[in-house]
Amino acid sequence: MSQLKAIEALLVQFRDERDWKQFHNPKDLAVALSIEAGELLEAFLWKGAEEAKIEKVKEELADVLAYAILLGHHYDLDLEQVVREKVAKNAEKYPVDKAKGVATKYNEL
Amino acid sequence: MSQLKAIEALLVQFRDERDWKQFHNPKDLAVALSIEAGELLEAFLWKGAEEAKIEKVKEELADVLAYAILLGHHYDLDLEQVVREKVAKNAEKYPVDKAKGVATKYNEL
Amino acid sequence: MSQLKAIEALLVQFRDERDWKQFHNPKDLAVALSIEAGELLEAFLWKGAEEAKIEKVKEELADVLAYAILLGHHYDLDLEQVVREKVAKNAEKYPVDKAKGVATKYNEL
Amino acid sequence: MSQLKAIEALLVQFRDERDWKQFHNPKDLAVALSIEAGELLEAFLWKGAEEAKIEKVKEELADVLAYAILLGHHYDLDLEQVVREKVAKNAEKYPVDKAKGVATKYNEL
Repeated sequence: MSQLKAIEALLVQFRDERDWKQFHNPKDLAVALSIEAGELLEAFLWKGAEEAKIEKVKEELADVLAYAILLGHHYDLDLEQVVREKVAKNAEKYPVDKAKGVATKYNEL
Repeated sequence: MSQLKAIEALLVQFRDERDWKQFHNPKDLAVALSIEAGELLEAFLWKGAEEAKIEKVKEELADVLAYAILLGHHYDLDLEQVVREKVAKNAEKYPVDKAKGVATKYNEL
Repeated sequence: MSQLKAIEALLVQFRDERDWKQFHNPKDLAVALSIEAGELLEAFLWKGAEEAKIEKVKEELADVLAYAILLGHHYDLDLEQVVREKVAKNAEKYPVDKAKGVATKYNEL
Repeated sequence: MSQLKAIEALLVQFRDERDWKQFHNPKDLAVALSIEAGELLEAFLWKGAEEAKIEKVKEELADVLAYAILLGHHYDLDLEQVVREKVAKNAEKYPVDKAKGVATKYNEL
């Protein structure tokens, strides 16, 4: 079993022991992920870019990853493949010669 | 190399080819992750829970994962370990006998 | 009619001309507001705090306000009153003598 | 003074009594707004569209509005004007004859 599938299995087991599948429709999973992304942001609020407390970052990043993986589970996705496909797509949107050293969005390049 | 480290290596290579490390401080990575979480939500807006288009979900989920993994890279985290620690913590916050079948937040259980 | 009620009336008219009330349940309005908050954030991504383009900020701030006011409309809220009550509550959570000059969250003060 | 300017004055007074202007750069205000939008979403998580607790909605909506108004204050915006301009723009993006009764995004209409 791949590493991501092993983490997925752990999260699904945690969910099923609590009978939470009934709540985990994909829309609410996406809502939950967005809430956790907000809590992750809170670690950086009113602070310099490097001043977040690592313990807070780790906890909220774990929650973001957990909901991302559960959403992938819902759709039976291979998340490594999903990321690799997006990187390939981004390589076309952001060709090295145009994107190098600039943070401009692709549609303004 | 573990699966997550392999994906991380791919993302870091993509970043470095474009000389984007200069932009990727952890605060902006968390901001980017939150923006992508919003774009993922957009796949579900004004729709029933199961009506999102899978192609849109895959693209935005990939972006969320990419920024989560780059943030982990910044802090040199083992993301599998980070998730496993959070699951262990949540198992204490949400004991099976109290949490089974209810979506109540731990501080109201 | 108060200024906020006038803006609310404008937004409700825009909505009703398009027969969009059917989509505007409060959960989707909150989802829409969160998406727009993400688009507002995008104005600041990879940039210094004062480097956002004001036109982008204005457009996304307008969307955030529109969904906030439509959500208030759904619940028949007096939004001025809602903000005033929260300010009064925050004045207790953040007493001047403890909160002055520090950005600490109330539960850590 | 208009209603929105009165609320703005209240929020600025609250901020200045605590000497918080130093933290309120526009990027962090947008980050704070996004965090609060996430907390508002939490009122709807794992729930039917009409099942949020109104007290939670009011508190988080107040926070969203407060940061939106403080961001407007930073840029010295007339927020009523900002919303009216966006509504006019949206009227062009979403003409009644095309948009009536459909929740499709303008770029797919």
